[in-house]
Amino acid sequence: MKLGIVGLGLIGGSLGLDLRDLGFEVLGVSRRQNTCDLAVSMGVADRASLNLSLLKEADLIFICTPIAAIVPTLKELIPHLDRHTVITDVGSVKSAIVNTCASLWDNFVGGHPMAGTANQGVEAAEKNLFQDAPYVITPNERTPISAQNKVEDLARSLGSKVYVATPVAHDRAVAWISHLPAMVSAGLISAVTSEADLEVLKLAMNLASSGFRDTSRVGGGNPELGLMMAQYNREELLRSMKQYRQNLDRFIDLIESENWQSLDNILKSTQQKRPDFL
Amino acid sequence: MKLGIVGLGLIGGSLGLDLRDLGFEVLGVSRRQNTCDLAVSMGVADRASLNLSLLKEADLIFICTPIAAIVPTLKELIPHLDRHTVITDVGSVKSAIVNTCASLWDNFVGGHPMAGTANQGVEAAEKNLFQDAPYVITPNERTPISAQNKVEDLARSLGSKVYVATPVAHDRAVAWISHLPAMVSAGLISAVTSEADLEVLKLAMNLASSGFRDTSRVGGGNPELGLMMAQYNREELLRSMKQYRQNLDRFIDLIESENWQSLDNILKSTQQKRPDFL
Repeated sequence: MKLGIVGLGLIGGSLGLDLRDLGFEVLGVSRRQNTCDLAVSMGVADRASLNLSLLKEADLIFICTPIAAIVPTLKELIPHLDRHTVITDVGSVKSAIVNTCASLWDNFVGGHPMAGTANQGVEAAEKNLFQDAPYVITPNERTPISAQNKVEDLARSLGSKVYVATPVAHDRAVAWISHLPAMVSAGLISAVTSEADLEVLKLAMNLASSGFRDTSRVGGGNPELGLMMAQYNREELLRSMKQYRQNLDRFIDLIESENWQSLDNILKSTQQKRPDFL
Repeated sequence: MKLGIVGLGLIGGSLGLDLRDLGFEVLGVSRRQNTCDLAVSMGVADRASLNLSLLKEADLIFICTPIAAIVPTLKELIPHLDRHTVITDVGSVKSAIVNTCASLWDNFVGGHPMAGTANQGVEAAEKNLFQDAPYVITPNERTPISAQNKVEDLARSLGSKVYVATPVAHDRAVAWISHLPAMVSAGLISAVTSEADLEVLKLAMNLASSGFRDTSRVGGGNPELGLMMAQYNREELLRSMKQYRQNLDRFIDLIESENWQSLDNILKSTQQKRPDFL
């Protein structure tokens, strides 16, 4: 089986390394010749080209571009392909992608390998990046089971933990555990730095330690990622943020009314439930 | 100079170890004989007793009890002491403590050494716990400078970074960097676990990784600590939570109105400002 990868960055590059190790022939496409050359020399792809026509030989293609480029890339790919070719993507939001792509290409299977590092580009590609990481497959009602099985098998061969969910369930779950935390955390930095008393602000900077560091970490991350989450998972992110605001209001009410018993119950519950997510 | 310590837990015990290493004679008081025995055998105190009268010889006394016991302990101590004795505490909130204690004892100096580990009790005491950690001294308008200087000198001799602030400035700063993060983080766990779609909740548990882990850490901590923050720093915590809610509402508004430019500006700003707190 020949595999194609469009977009040879951290994810596409790391997929290429592992898939070649598994014995597949890997064809890569990038928008930059330098990336193509590097991909071949690093062992990410057997062959690489600027031209999507290289992928006409591929049986299955991973679209590993930034989210905004997934649909345009699919449209550009289509003229080159045989209709049996399976296409999957690795985008971190799914509803916005899957519904459009599935209407354009019968054998489209949405996917989201949840692995990464702080680095970018093909130079950052590494082997076994997906080992033990979640890989969510997000078929919709028109996804052929044969195509879904091919993507699932590949994800398992990478050592990933495969989950199957609807695009909406995926987007809702990642809103809770990834996109909401980013906004909650950015809101914290934003609130603290709004302190008008500069003596207090300076003291807060001096006294901040691991509690603030951890709670603010994802909110101080790459702004492009945060913006992307909000743009492409807008509806589910808003849903989670509004639920969060209700919970925050409840905390404020309990503290204002000095209802310590209820606050204690909630704090005991959060302590008890957090390990379910670890 | 003879030093007294009431409350031989992690903080009191660690103070004793360092202060004895610095050559001071340390007298310890605990409510349990077993703790007194352990304190002496561990080198936390030269002598230890269940009875506060042991501290009549002390020139300076650290009250290291839980917050709720600070004022009652001071009241019990007073009959035993000469009026020159300096008394300080190590409570993590200051307005509620300092104003009352200063009205009861002229030579009272509020303090907050910001060090700790996840462990409790005298067995958890360790040397150099305060080295390079912040130690906030919080005099009010009636604190004698001679008493303040004695506590500052001891804090410096422990290797701490000494900051001097009013009780209100301290409480406001720790609300921002410690108490607000705890509530923001607990609110996150509380919101996620309110998800009614059990398939989504299960998927969220499976997909949660370092972003959720870090943002939820302090909210999944000791409920007693969270409750204590809310009870004893209620006013400043509420102030910070209400400001936080305004910032969160602004995020929601920007996402609802798809004002991506303004959201991008805020996320760039949070990324840029976070390092000031590290």
